[in-house]
Amino acid sequence: MDGVLADVYSRFFDLHEEETGERKTMDEIIGIKEVEAFPEVLRWVNTPGFFLNIPVMTDSQRVLELLNKKYDIVIVSMATEFPESLTDKQIWLHEHFPFITWRQSVFCGNKSLIKADIMIDDHFMNLDNFEGETLMFVQPHNINNNGHRHKPMASWTEIEKYLL
Amino acid sequence: MDGVLADVYSRFFDLHEEETGERKTMDEIIGIKEVEAFPEVLRWVNTPGFFLNIPVMTDSQRVLELLNKKYDIVIVSMATEFPESLTDKQIWLHEHFPFITWRQSVFCGNKSLIKADIMIDDHFMNLDNFEGETLMFVQPHNINNNGHRHKPMASWTEIEKYLL
Repeated sequence: MDGVLADVYSRFFDLHEEETGERKTMDEIIGIKEVEAFPEVLRWVNTPGFFLNIPVMTDSQRVLELLNKKYDIVIVSMATEFPESLTDKQIWLHEHFPFITWRQSVFCGNKSLIKADIMIDDHFMNLDNFEGETLMFVQPHNINNNGHRHKPMASWTEIEKYLL
Repeated sequence: MDGVLADVYSRFFDLHEEETGERKTMDEIIGIKEVEAFPEVLRWVNTPGFFLNIPVMTDSQRVLELLNKKYDIVIVSMATEFPESLTDKQIWLHEHFPFITWRQSVFCGNKSLIKADIMIDDHFMNLDNFEGETLMFVQPHNINNNGHRHKPMASWTEIEKYLL
């Protein structure tokens, strides 16, 4: 979800500005882990209501609805580390992607437990341990990383062209 | 979790008595689905706080802690149908089974998505679709059902003897 369906960075920029009065630039955080770019991120994501206000990633609703007609889609989110995020995440998912049923969502602490053929993710931690095909959704923290086998996807329209 | 680690029936009996003034007996609900035995169950389980007050199943803490030293344990709960239960369930799990880390918990809408070798569950819906070994935790709704391949387990001490 985060960094693929949910545009968490746009919210991180806003929250950082609200709390410090200064707005970070994309240049400052390129290639840096989320928790290093935004030191308050772990507090934010475990605050009730945080996920209810995250904007959806551009084109994700339209493309995922198309993919959902051709593929067996499962939305898998690393979330059990942050109990307060769990309820909000399911509510957010249902609100913005109503064509994804509750039977298609998984909240876990280890994505390698889930059976699947293709993974779309932004974190190497998840992609590196996946045996199937891996599509890396490009985000500020992973943009500079090379040496990984994962196919980079810069947008949902790129995913659309590749998978449809 | 429900009906295996969490003794939901003891709470169902109490809630039914609180709301109607009458206490159901075990004889009345043997062999009947939970939603038929307690018509308000779907409302109860989607009420924030419901899961925080569920007692743990007898011997489950002691036996699961032992199992956790020998097996790779994952707690998988059908929960995404009830968004309000998700946060409470993770909090409850961590409170009563602190040796189970957040990396070992999964909340989903389809247990057949999860890789595993042995399943301990009380619902045929989950057990019937599992390819590995199935241990059926005996609960009022499944006690009369025969014709299934699942090995019945009447208690956590029985699981202890079988798996350890």
